[in-house]
Amino acid sequence: MSMLKEPGRKYRPFPPINLPDRQWPNRTITHPPRWLSTDLRDGNQAIVDPMDAVKKNRFFDLLVQVGVKEIEIGFPAAGQTEFDFIQELVRSGRVPDDVTVQVLTQAREDLIKRSFESLEGARTAIVHVYNAVSPAWREIVFRMSRDEVKQIAINAAKLLRDEAAKRPNTDWHFEYSPETFSTAEIDFSLEVCEAVMDVLQPTSERPLILNLPATVEAATPNIYADQIEYFCRNLPNRQAAAISLHTHNDRGTGVAAAELGLMAGADRVEGCLFGNGERTGNCCLVTVGLNMYTQGIDPGLDFSNIDEIIETVEYCNQLPVHPRHPYGGELVFTAFSGSHQDAIKKGFEAQDQRNDELWRVPYLPIDPADLGRNYEAVIRVNSQSGKGGFAWVLEQGQGLKLPKRLQVDFSRHVQRMADELGRELNSDDIWASFQDAYFLTDQGATFELVDYEESRGHDGTRLFSGTITVAGKKQSVSGRGKGLVSSVLATLQQTFGLNIEVLDYTEHALGKGTDARAAAYLECALPNGNVVWGVGIDQDVATASVRAILSAANAAVAAEA
Amino acid sequence: MSMLKEPGRKYRPFPPINLPDRQWPNRTITHPPRWLSTDLRDGNQAIVDPMDAVKKNRFFDLLVQVGVKEIEIGFPAAGQTEFDFIQELVRSGRVPDDVTVQVLTQAREDLIKRSFESLEGARTAIVHVYNAVSPAWREIVFRMSRDEVKQIAINAAKLLRDEAAKRPNTDWHFEYSPETFSTAEIDFSLEVCEAVMDVLQPTSERPLILNLPATVEAATPNIYADQIEYFCRNLPNRQAAAISLHTHNDRGTGVAAAELGLMAGADRVEGCLFGNGERTGNCCLVTVGLNMYTQGIDPGLDFSNIDEIIETVEYCNQLPVHPRHPYGGELVFTAFSGSHQDAIKKGFEAQDQRNDELWRVPYLPIDPADLGRNYEAVIRVNSQSGKGGFAWVLEQGQGLKLPKRLQVDFSRHVQRMADELGRELNSDDIWASFQDAYFLTDQGATFELVDYEESRGHDGTRLFSGTITVAGKKQSVSGRGKGLVSSVLATLQQTFGLNIEVLDYTEHALGKGTDARAAAYLECALPNGNVVWGVGIDQDVATASVRAILSAANAAVAAEA
Repeated sequence: MSMLKEPGRKYRPFPPINLPDRQWPNRTITHPPRWLSTDLRDGNQAIVDPMDAVKKNRFFDLLVQVGVKEIEIGFPAAGQTEFDFIQELVRSGRVPDDVTVQVLTQAREDLIKRSFESLEGARTAIVHVYNAVSPAWREIVFRMSRDEVKQIAINAAKLLRDEAAKRPNTDWHFEYSPETFSTAEIDFSLEVCEAVMDVLQPTSERPLILNLPATVEAATPNIYADQIEYFCRNLPNRQAAAISLHTHNDRGTGVAAAELGLMAGADRVEGCLFGNGERTGNCCLVTVGLNMYTQGIDPGLDFSNIDEIIETVEYCNQLPVHPRHPYGGELVFTAFSGSHQDAIKKGFEAQDQRNDELWRVPYLPIDPADLGRNYEAVIRVNSQSGKGGFAWVLEQGQGLKLPKRLQVDFSRHVQRMADELGRELNSDDIWASFQDAYFLTDQGATFELVDYEESRGHDGTRLFSGTITVAGKKQSVSGRGKGLVSSVLATLQQTFGLNIEVLDYTEHALGKGTDARAAAYLECALPNGNVVWGVGIDQDVATASVRAILSAANAAVAAEA
Repeated sequence: MSMLKEPGRKYRPFPPINLPDRQWPNRTITHPPRWLSTDLRDGNQAIVDPMDAVKKNRFFDLLVQVGVKEIEIGFPAAGQTEFDFIQELVRSGRVPDDVTVQVLTQAREDLIKRSFESLEGARTAIVHVYNAVSPAWREIVFRMSRDEVKQIAINAAKLLRDEAAKRPNTDWHFEYSPETFSTAEIDFSLEVCEAVMDVLQPTSERPLILNLPATVEAATPNIYADQIEYFCRNLPNRQAAAISLHTHNDRGTGVAAAELGLMAGADRVEGCLFGNGERTGNCCLVTVGLNMYTQGIDPGLDFSNIDEIIETVEYCNQLPVHPRHPYGGELVFTAFSGSHQDAIKKGFEAQDQRNDELWRVPYLPIDPADLGRNYEAVIRVNSQSGKGGFAWVLEQGQGLKLPKRLQVDFSRHVQRMADELGRELNSDDIWASFQDAYFLTDQGATFELVDYEESRGHDGTRLFSGTITVAGKKQSVSGRGKGLVSSVLATLQQTFGLNIEVLDYTEHALGKGTDARAAAYLECALPNGNVVWGVGIDQDVATASVRAILSAANAAVAAEA
């Protein structure tokens, strides 16, 4: 079995639009469109187990909370359950004044009438009628001529006009979709839309929504943009229409098509949260909205609690948001690779030091905090990670700020552990490995501090006298030096013959206030030239140093063993 | 909590490229690029549990099977495990002659040398060096001037040249990536790439691969295409470079950026199967490849066994392929909505009747069979489905071709069942419901056929005499008519007072050859004007009709009850 070697016999290239003077590539998106969520319609039609009324209501409330102002709530003629849900929602009082509900119907008299009935009691509503206009649908599905297909649209428009006139208590708006627009002859789509406008007589104050769907995505997204620009430029009375985009993702470019379509002149975007919808889904409203946000444009949608949004969407759709889904996926702010981790760490540091608000952190196109995410998940450690990774984890989890050369020393331990375990290391793994490596627990330590006193001699030297356990047995020890560190080193030299030279010493506070502790790091040379590190943590600054020396001594013993 | 109301203070719009005479929007993709899989490198760096050698080998073999000819197999300087894997693979003999392995390294002397060592024994190989060139990285991560950054690239190029010269047994090729190309000053990227070319002296026969990554996707995909076209037009000695694209998906438009980049003049696409890779992932090679295929272009990649490919990718990455992922997702060829099902059904029928190979089925941009998928999953039934859905399922599963009006009759049963169950209906559900509705099992039936004889009278009429059970009790019955059907109807009228008028009758074979059975459908009117349907299935054509009449009689009794 293999794919066709001459696929050209089965599949034809999509014919481009002739638009050499296209303007959209010179434009950028500067303001948000009108947004229409079709989660409760296109989305709901495409899931294995359609939502019940409880889920639909929960999803509706979420959309309102996100800030979507136009919501397609169903296909009322599809069945009694759907009809009842729409009627109940409309009459429930749960539709805010600034939110408009929309329903979809095929262009058939009985279905259109039923759709109006379902909206009985609505303050304002959009009735959305569609019929397919492309040659494949005309020839294969309907076996109709162009004129017959156009007449269907005209008849539907007349019904919209007349049914609305019978129900003056609702502020009616209309949407017409030439379904399969992207694969239809564009001049025919224009002709049909013009005919619908002739019936409905929209104005710039009360425009007709003309939705131009890529029902099936069939070409690169620039072609869709060409189609939209061509349509906008050639539609008479353009200002009386709101051009709406409804892209699908069959070629994985539904978001791109919507964005380029906006640059081409469209006013409105239809889609679903996280791109649910028929087959490969609709345009993802979260992605398009946040793409604007990261360009400094307020999309008018609020995703500041993205984890709660995901939870609701996954519950209602019973479909996962992919771990790599832009902005929402579990892994999209995560770096495992060492160089990425290092750059992100430096970015956060630089961000802290700058005075402006400008976001400029390598590898992170958006501040996770703007979406209600914390930074903990940003840097994660496995065998692909470098020093930046575990250093970040130890700093975030334990408050430890390891000196650069200690990071190098510790990286051997982390790498070995990651290779052995063959899985991600969590912060507990790393902390345990760090404690082992530097003898912060009893485990494997030769020397342990029990207690000590420090006193100043009359010659200005310091006397260290204390109790330590040596291989489990308590022992009193003492030594004298110019300072605390040297007095402990002298003790070790005199009592155990351990020669340790301190190369570098740093110490910092852990935490703030009365609970603060101190961490001391000691880089030491052994007589054979090897370098070992000691780490000590204690509530007392001086004791942390003593512990760090004993930690180095343990390392020295271990290195000889 | 909410997102910033003035995001412009934190995020700046991406500055476009000034290229008013851009040519890429006038072009289409006419031939496949060189493909580079980075599944074992960028992909592997980005997963929670990196692949072990077993998984890496399995993935490598899959890539070879798919037809990828350039495979980035790792980052040898990242660790011993990675180095060992590369060495073992190169020496294993498992790299086919027409496949070239590639390794990635930062532009540092020790890492570059280590990378060459890892490829010891390779027949041919690509060493891929990168350093980041954008201002954010220069300023925040490296704290280097432009000249210093450029010098890093020059030094790396010299090392590539010299290390390769030391190892003449391998046919060495090189790739240079100005990392963070898409967010760098484009003239600086050109300057650095030119400097690298000056060192390596590539020719059109042995081009240098210049990979221009959208390390972080930061703008709409047309901007990336502008960058690629600008770069291609302004690179001296363009024919000595193979321009490679490496897009990420932070804005959900990584596939679009790669496609528009190809139109803008690039020669090569880097990516992963199903878009694995750092954060939001890389460009999906499956999608870009199959997008070409559906335009009649042989991508040179074979996805004809897509389910096996998915299985391996999911196993190795431990990440799911999303149900809506283009071409591969579980739901992308599935229609639940009634109108979609109807159109697809008509499309398949038209496809059967046409003589050309051209694929033209509504809502299906590719023939699922080309990917090794069958049609069974295309149409699935839930409360959103119409008649087309269950009719397709009954035809695919049972061979039944229900007359249109019988579909209408049965749709009430299906809709009720779907609403009650609140879940998808599988083919067993639908078949059980159909058998119940038309009394094809004993369940709920008043009349059941035991056996019968049919004889012709001397006046040409037919005599039906048989045994049926009536509410469980056997009874001998008989009647006379002009044909078999009318003789059975007369029997029912005379024996039980049942008046049934036949409005329409159709029958068709179920299956072929000696195992074939027959299905008979009877549309009947009752005295009160109501219509009931009878369905009979039997190995004998005549008996199927008798069963259909009794089925209608059962419906008539049930309607009166």
